[in-house]
Amino acid sequence: MTQQLSHAPVSVLGMGPMGRAIAGAFLAAGHPTMVWNRTAGKAGELVARGAVLADGPLAALDAAELAIVCVIDANAVEAILDQARAESGGPLPATTLVNLTSDGPGRARELAAKANDLGVRYLDGSIMTPAAAIGTEATRVLYSGPAGLFERHRPTLAALGGAAVHLGDDPGRAASFDVALLNLFWTSIAGLMHSFALAARQNVPATALAPHAQQMAGLVAELLPGLAADIDAGRFSGADSASLTSVAASLDHIVHVLEETGISATLTRTAKGTVDAAISAGHGGDAPVRLAEFLSRT
Amino acid sequence: MTQQLSHAPVSVLGMGPMGRAIAGAFLAAGHPTMVWNRTAGKAGELVARGAVLADGPLAALDAAELAIVCVIDANAVEAILDQARAESGGPLPATTLVNLTSDGPGRARELAAKANDLGVRYLDGSIMTPAAAIGTEATRVLYSGPAGLFERHRPTLAALGGAAVHLGDDPGRAASFDVALLNLFWTSIAGLMHSFALAARQNVPATALAPHAQQMAGLVAELLPGLAADIDAGRFSGADSASLTSVAASLDHIVHVLEETGISATLTRTAKGTVDAAISAGHGGDAPVRLAEFLSRT
Repeated sequence: MTQQLSHAPVSVLGMGPMGRAIAGAFLAAGHPTMVWNRTAGKAGELVARGAVLADGPLAALDAAELAIVCVIDANAVEAILDQARAESGGPLPATTLVNLTSDGPGRARELAAKANDLGVRYLDGSIMTPAAAIGTEATRVLYSGPAGLFERHRPTLAALGGAAVHLGDDPGRAASFDVALLNLFWTSIAGLMHSFALAARQNVPATALAPHAQQMAGLVAELLPGLAADIDAGRFSGADSASLTSVAASLDHIVHVLEETGISATLTRTAKGTVDAAISAGHGGDAPVRLAEFLSRT
Repeated sequence: MTQQLSHAPVSVLGMGPMGRAIAGAFLAAGHPTMVWNRTAGKAGELVARGAVLADGPLAALDAAELAIVCVIDANAVEAILDQARAESGGPLPATTLVNLTSDGPGRARELAAKANDLGVRYLDGSIMTPAAAIGTEATRVLYSGPAGLFERHRPTLAALGGAAVHLGDDPGRAASFDVALLNLFWTSIAGLMHSFALAARQNVPATALAPHAQQMAGLVAELLPGLAADIDAGRFSGADSASLTSVAASLDHIVHVLEETGISATLTRTAKGTVDAAISAGHGGDAPVRLAEFLSRT
């Protein structure tokens, strides 16, 4: 039984870069691994390493108690379930399907319902790290769906490496976290790219700005738990924090310098628009954390 | 001479929260401190601690080899120089004026020229930390202007605590860094507030998202030196990086979920607009660092 847990057969559906990295990690950890992709020819290297090519989604679901699906979006997952259903002509095997495809929380809940209707168990998950990290300590995967189901497959999922965090029974929860975190990441990167562009126009190389920008990004990380605690406690008027009115003045100043320097100010101006709206609603004296409450309400 | 270096008289012009914190730090470090403000009555506590109130800007400049000015903007600094000039009726004392007022790089250069014309030496600086940090190890101040002048006053400026970084002889350089770093900070905070709002609408408390968001902000900090090196080296097509085309798809997905959840998607849509423009210019296969180059060029 121990041997079965540590080397349980697994299936991986979807052979994009992430699906291939996942199958590779299972193979490396010694799991008998079956792979499938909608179009042929992407699993060659994995097959050379010992993976078995399934002739369809039903065969992949049939071959293992745990199947991972990682494709372009929820519609593609749904199409795979439909195809397995057509192949079966009846109910599907009671395999646990772990959907690591990126999509929204609403779609994750719909897929959970659909999988369950077809007799398939369902866990949702979001991979927070690049494909290159899969199988290493750097991997971070957020899961949601029935806790017992997650605990049952946790030893097998450990082959992906790093941290596996279960967020709750709601299958949409991992996707909620995923979208919120991706939004933080890409808006920060977009802001950073504008800052590098502004610096470049002022003859400041990116590598000269970088140590200071790193401190600034680190400051955001450092402040974050306190900001979150303030939001949950409804503390929107921190006395030692900048007021939204002074933030708006600071943003005006940044917009002015961006425009003067010839760098697009639309991102910063849009951020200021949110601050202005909160000020118009009477929150000018409040701390920036008011924005979270204001945005969730309006 | 050693005593003079460690307890050199200083003047502080501007008694807003930051100016008061600066004067307080000089007093705490044992420097004879003269203070001045355009409107009276803000220096009471400092005077009680031993500060001497100047009767005008000229007296403040006359009293010390080093004078700090920290007011609302460059126009207010200029008004102080004009007032000192009117009081003097001739050239001003060869005091070193360290302008820690936040404004743009162009204005810093203009102020440097104006101060020099009046016989005043000029250093510019940007305080990267809140007033509450002044005098502690957490302080970070970026300076620019003549290196010799900065080195001469470094021992006195050490009373502000923490790190004092000289960025170069161009008096506008500290302001360039300041604006770029503030832009990074506030766009990141704006993105974070949207993420907290999205989470709240999905019944995810801010404190539940926080540890993961902190990892994400930490990831930005961690990636930052590599991104900067890529930009300076012109490496815009990293093979293990997401392409701008896939970033646009990811942003589309985030926008969709924000809208579905009823959270303003304008910030994320604006970030996507920049990505789309870079794709239209033929950079769809490039890494996100291309945005810095694209923004600095268009």
